Amino acid sequence: MSKGKVCLAYSGGLDTSVILAWLIEQGYEVICFCADVGQEEDFKQAKEKALKIGAKACYIEDLREEFILEQCWPAIQCNAVYESVYLLGTSLARPVIARAQIKVAQKEGCIAVSHGCTGKGNDQVRFELAFYALQPSIKVIAPWRDPTFYDRFPGRKNLLDYAAEKGIPVTSTKSKPWSMDENLAHCSYEAGILEDPDITPPKDMWKLTIDPVKASDTPEDFTIEFTKGIPTQMEYTEGEKKKVVTDAVELFLAANDIAKRNGVGRIDIVENRFIGIKSRGCYETPGLTCLRAAHVDLEGLTLDREVRALRDQFVTFNYSKVLYNGLYFSPEREFLTASIIASQGHVNGTVRCRCYKGTFSVIGRSSKTEKLYDMEESSMDQIGEFSPSETGGFIGVQAIRLKKYGSMKTEAGERL
Amino acid sequence: MSKGKVCLAYSGGLDTSVILAWLIEQGYEVICFCADVGQEEDFKQAKEKALKIGAKACYIEDLREEFILEQCWPAIQCNAVYESVYLLGTSLARPVIARAQIKVAQKEGCIAVSHGCTGKGNDQVRFELAFYALQPSIKVIAPWRDPTFYDRFPGRKNLLDYAAEKGIPVTSTKSKPWSMDENLAHCSYEAGILEDPDITPPKDMWKLTIDPVKASDTPEDFTIEFTKGIPTQMEYTEGEKKKVVTDAVELFLAANDIAKRNGVGRIDIVENRFIGIKSRGCYETPGLTCLRAAHVDLEGLTLDREVRALRDQFVTFNYSKVLYNGLYFSPEREFLTASIIASQGHVNGTVRCRCYKGTFSVIGRSSKTEKLYDMEESSMDQIGEFSPSETGGFIGVQAIRLKKYGSMKTEAGERL
Amino acid sequence: MSKGKVCLAYSGGLDTSVILAWLIEQGYEVICFCADVGQEEDFKQAKEKALKIGAKACYIEDLREEFILEQCWPAIQCNAVYESVYLLGTSLARPVIARAQIKVAQKEGCIAVSHGCTGKGNDQVRFELAFYALQPSIKVIAPWRDPTFYDRFPGRKNLLDYAAEKGIPVTSTKSKPWSMDENLAHCSYEAGILEDPDITPPKDMWKLTIDPVKASDTPEDFTIEFTKGIPTQMEYTEGEKKKVVTDAVELFLAANDIAKRNGVGRIDIVENRFIGIKSRGCYETPGLTCLRAAHVDLEGLTLDREVRALRDQFVTFNYSKVLYNGLYFSPEREFLTASIIASQGHVNGTVRCRCYKGTFSVIGRSSKTEKLYDMEESSMDQIGEFSPSETGGFIGVQAIRLKKYGSMKTEAGERL
Amino acid sequence: MSKGKVCLAYSGGLDTSVILAWLIEQGYEVICFCADVGQEEDFKQAKEKALKIGAKACYIEDLREEFILEQCWPAIQCNAVYESVYLLGTSLARPVIARAQIKVAQKEGCIAVSHGCTGKGNDQVRFELAFYALQPSIKVIAPWRDPTFYDRFPGRKNLLDYAAEKGIPVTSTKSKPWSMDENLAHCSYEAGILEDPDITPPKDMWKLTIDPVKASDTPEDFTIEFTKGIPTQMEYTEGEKKKVVTDAVELFLAANDIAKRNGVGRIDIVENRFIGIKSRGCYETPGLTCLRAAHVDLEGLTLDREVRALRDQFVTFNYSKVLYNGLYFSPEREFLTASIIASQGHVNGTVRCRCYKGTFSVIGRSSKTEKLYDMEESSMDQIGEFSPSETGGFIGVQAIRLKKYGSMKTEAGERL
Repeated sequence: MSKGKVCLAYSGGLDTSVILAWLIEQGYEVICFCADVGQEEDFKQAKEKALKIGAKACYIEDLREEFILEQCWPAIQCNAVYESVYLLGTSLARPVIARAQIKVAQKEGCIAVSHGCTGKGNDQVRFELAFYALQPSIKVIAPWRDPTFYDRFPGRKNLLDYAAEKGIPVTSTKSKPWSMDENLAHCSYEAGILEDPDITPPKDMWKLTIDPVKASDTPEDFTIEFTKGIPTQMEYTEGEKKKVVTDAVELFLAANDIAKRNGVGRIDIVENRFIGIKSRGCYETPGLTCLRAAHVDLEGLTLDREVRALRDQFVTFNYSKVLYNGLYFSPEREFLTASIIASQGHVNGTVRCRCYKGTFSVIGRSSKTEKLYDMEESSMDQIGEFSPSETGGFIGVQAIRLKKYGSMKTEAGERL
Repeated sequence: MSKGKVCLAYSGGLDTSVILAWLIEQGYEVICFCADVGQEEDFKQAKEKALKIGAKACYIEDLREEFILEQCWPAIQCNAVYESVYLLGTSLARPVIARAQIKVAQKEGCIAVSHGCTGKGNDQVRFELAFYALQPSIKVIAPWRDPTFYDRFPGRKNLLDYAAEKGIPVTSTKSKPWSMDENLAHCSYEAGILEDPDITPPKDMWKLTIDPVKASDTPEDFTIEFTKGIPTQMEYTEGEKKKVVTDAVELFLAANDIAKRNGVGRIDIVENRFIGIKSRGCYETPGLTCLRAAHVDLEGLTLDREVRALRDQFVTFNYSKVLYNGLYFSPEREFLTASIIASQGHVNGTVRCRCYKGTFSVIGRSSKTEKLYDMEESSMDQIGEFSPSETGGFIGVQAIRLKKYGSMKTEAGERL
Repeated sequence: MSKGKVCLAYSGGLDTSVILAWLIEQGYEVICFCADVGQEEDFKQAKEKALKIGAKACYIEDLREEFILEQCWPAIQCNAVYESVYLLGTSLARPVIARAQIKVAQKEGCIAVSHGCTGKGNDQVRFELAFYALQPSIKVIAPWRDPTFYDRFPGRKNLLDYAAEKGIPVTSTKSKPWSMDENLAHCSYEAGILEDPDITPPKDMWKLTIDPVKASDTPEDFTIEFTKGIPTQMEYTEGEKKKVVTDAVELFLAANDIAKRNGVGRIDIVENRFIGIKSRGCYETPGLTCLRAAHVDLEGLTLDREVRALRDQFVTFNYSKVLYNGLYFSPEREFLTASIIASQGHVNGTVRCRCYKGTFSVIGRSSKTEKLYDMEESSMDQIGEFSPSETGGFIGVQAIRLKKYGSMKTEAGERL
Repeated sequence: MSKGKVCLAYSGGLDTSVILAWLIEQGYEVICFCADVGQEEDFKQAKEKALKIGAKACYIEDLREEFILEQCWPAIQCNAVYESVYLLGTSLARPVIARAQIKVAQKEGCIAVSHGCTGKGNDQVRFELAFYALQPSIKVIAPWRDPTFYDRFPGRKNLLDYAAEKGIPVTSTKSKPWSMDENLAHCSYEAGILEDPDITPPKDMWKLTIDPVKASDTPEDFTIEFTKGIPTQMEYTEGEKKKVVTDAVELFLAANDIAKRNGVGRIDIVENRFIGIKSRGCYETPGLTCLRAAHVDLEGLTLDREVRALRDQFVTFNYSKVLYNGLYFSPEREFLTASIIASQGHVNGTVRCRCYKGTFSVIGRSSKTEKLYDMEESSMDQIGEFSPSETGGFIGVQAIRLKKYGSMKTEAGERL
């Protein structure tokens, strides 16, 4: 008798194929679920494989637009970044995947969901916290945290043996000496040879960007238009042809293409995982790197100083941490989203951008609607609306507190 | 009869030469003060000019080492950055200049200090807040905020006429259509044609870095060693020769050279001045860009996650704001400095760096003394000290709160 | 010929009466404006006096409901407090007064507004920043910052002499040796004898609360119901009669009454003014003290931990600072308001309260709609939904980072 | 054969006595450890009982002074408070207890430590995180999280039966319908009948303070002197006698006595536990409530505004959270401690205090050494060092940004 249905996040690879067969062996009926978040993958073949191994069904869900609209846009709006450098490419995809998987599980009446994440990483946390928030009663089967599973498959050879035994087709491709996670926004590389943080990643590892050294010798210019902090139009040149894109997915893909051919968006860091372990990750985030940097620039032109400061210190920092830690479906994320929206009403304008051999730079910006930047007021050559003598008063009042402090230091004989 | 002695921050340029003559005309005895913070300037000639115009004395103070040790090192230690992008190059130099000027003023028995800053910028605030903290009783003469001065000299022509009348030598060099501020760490460009934020700066404007397009086609690798967050050794190759520098000034200059020849360190932004005006600035900060980025990377390897998070949100943000706003000599800056020091005890190690056509990247890092990164623990292939099943408990407990929230949302019929 | 119309914030007291006469003397036509924010004042008499002195008109605006709904409710919703103690009673009234004054000024075609605030306090800043935001072109006449005024009236005697000369009626009431500001929410006492921070305020100073020592010997209990963080119903007993109030103004007044008769809501502090001066203030804030404390308590029951933490650290702190500094009409305040609203959706429930001889305490709380508090889950006697063994995993994972740190310390021979 | 030695935190009560017997039954040799942190307890009797049940040894450690100096003083220095209200009385004692227990375990060569904390509370986390940081290799035995234990002892009756069986003496005292934790600084009450957050605690529950209604009808005044933020002297009157205490423990006890007899220091809240559960707790913290409030007041007089603001937002909030969550032995706590020290250099002075029927209030404060408060500068009646006209400039410059914003709103037809 079946122990019930399980919805398994299935990739078509060796690990999740073995998990699929193992779950069936344990007495579960398994529904496979493949999320299309823009990664390079033969979904048709994965589905065939799943069914061949014994899945009752295999759902393939195209989540690309949802991923961009719901996750990438807000990340750009708040300039999300974890630990000064990481643009959260993996974290951003998890919420849409988890929600789609829960939907399939609910539709199929599954009692549990399952995944192939390891027991030391961030992704298990991200998926499961999302599962539990979305359906508090759901059971989670995490084979890589279950001794009956991981003791049985301590190495790749054991997986291959089991695959052979169960008639699971294995591609002859040699496994890469690192693990990867890819989506429309980014590709990550970690583990394996990368675990030594002093080893420079091999040149052929990077997948979504070309080597800056091999990129074009000519800078490529393009413009991005933002409406309320969201990229709504991009103009660029392909060959000799001017192109204008406005559709979200097309725009995102075009940004990816430009960044890719100019080698923009690679980082290599040691980061702090949610569970408290430091790990080394290499990430490439081509289009998002450009879109985010252009957005940061436009905020200089259009966003009030104090709103920006509060947003930077509070929203950017915490939204990034919340996303990284897998807490997208949480009261605190909803709370932060309200702040993101409240901050972006005036972030309207156009940024002129340049990519060149690994660098992204801004070469100009303007806004038709926003007026906080005022060329005349800003000008050093013009007196403008306020009298320069007022600044004396401003400084004088600011100095009241400092003079007291200076006097105390002087009296105490301390050096300033 | 003399109104008393004034110590004037003197650059040898047209503005401060006119101010010098004007102060004398007003009845002051003027002591000139030139700060050498590494800018390109003929100090000897400036001194001669000052004396020729009528200064009673002209002091030239070499503040380069003090600037690096006291200002640049802590900025690197806390990854100082204003509004996500600006490395504070101008702000960092102001405290050492102001203190040296006050020292001269005190030595000479001056009743006032004077400067040539405009009435709309940040520098007037930075200098004067420093003056007032360092000597609360000092008087400040700011001609560009004094109507009797600025109404008399509304344009460059009036300054030139006055210079001619007073016999002030004027270099025939055509004035650049922007204003600059230079020191060992950076050069800024603003005002003039740059006031239109959509105008791309002309190629010949940049002074401290070569155009990335003209930079070498071969990446240049080098290593930086940090001790308690401070750069203490740099190894690089010049021609075919290995070089090792450990002296602070030499190290800083070597970092500048590498960045310069690889076109690294340019930015172009619209920022928010302390007085509430938005302004456009272009900055190049060659060596400091590399040193700071390498430091950020090393913190990934060596700094505890929670210390880093607190430091990022609190110290980095506020130290940068305090510096930008000219509040170096303040109780809050002293308070923040204690935190910087407390955060850096473990930031020891070596970062392998690469510069190439405008980009700085890290290609590896290591530490002989720090052990928070643990290759084995981090490894996805090893179970390590903790049992993967513990992570299930970790997630389960994190989920308690989220399940409650998920249930409430579901009951309320709200979408997650 | 008239210099134009000025709208003067008029209180009927000596200072603003003299200012009124002085403005007329200076050649202005003066429109007086009295804001009724619940202070004890004979507005009819003030109006007569204004017209007698020569005002062209005198407007009296009842702003009490607006003050409560627009200012006091959000302050309660975010538990606003400045420097740990001060409930911002004066600050909260300023925005509604300034806006009403500007409306009168606009209606009457005034070229300027004027007020009687001193040149060292917070109120001048609060009023004027509001004026400038509400009508950027407005001119402000601040006599107490104008040497032609303050040099002419260096002491109270000069004001009295001028009043006599101009036929301004002066009440024979002896001036109190401190200054006061009163509204529906609070009364402040500062200056005069209170300037010595070690002098205990005289017993007869306090106006809105009775001396705790003289308050009833029996505790008084009452309940407050909140909807989305706003007090929407209060039940209490008057004499023997149960009372239920739901109207905002009535509820606020009833809270004031209860607090008053039980001596609740007095504080005596030294605070930091916006201009950088420390000053001593005594404040009594009867009803607001109770309503805010009850709200804090209800958030314990109903608000998610992380939302509360973010709100406390970010919104409460900054909203309070923004209000204190007079920046209600600013982009940052609008930004923060969005966060306040986003935080309060679940703050629904009832708090049972007690006042007794100066103390406010909570004696119970409940919510019909909110379910984050779960008696069973919370119970130490029940296992509940999660397995206690999960907590071991939670602790184990939290300890990963700490074990590394502990090992490093031990190796280094440092004491923990 | 013995499974090895275990060091058990032993209180002499039913739970830990049963755990002691059970551990022995499991084959461990047990060393008992009693921490004296000032709770009311017959340690001699507890020791006898432990030895009688079969403990190999029983250590009683007097940690009272350490608790005050190391934990209570820094908590006062940073005004520590969790979720606006809770003074962390329990949390503060945990680090010193855990460290003393680990010392005993190390001395005795124990392989494990054990405690009687429940599986849902904060204390298990606090103790174990401390154990793991102090000795990363230690094993923890938490019976209340072990099904073999908690399934065997599902109720009090099972414990009593086992006690009878093992000859464990049980006091005839009827168990209270709540659980308590007491130390020198506070006593907590939770669980049992208190789990309904709407039930008012019974009058006879409170132990460390008398009922405000029964407290003296006369206010009691006393003074506290602080040196660098630490209470160093207290003057009060006992009977008719003036008393002066300077010893830390004596001072703390004297503060407790005053607060106790005046009914000061009770709170009743719903808080958020670290593991994500909301729970109701009643706490009484007599002396610490007064000492902390007096310290807050003195900071008004002596601490720079900006240091205070940074400290409030950053240090107070995070130190409290870190302590509450049991992370005292952590890099982030060490980092925060450096900030606390850096903030307190100027917090020197004397606060005159009053307790009366449940309220603590300040009636005056002064400092012989600190000069940031300046009666003359603060005075509204004196012009002082700065010219009032400077404030106009201050306001004018602050308004630049707001005028732009106001103009934009007006143009957009939006209401301010």
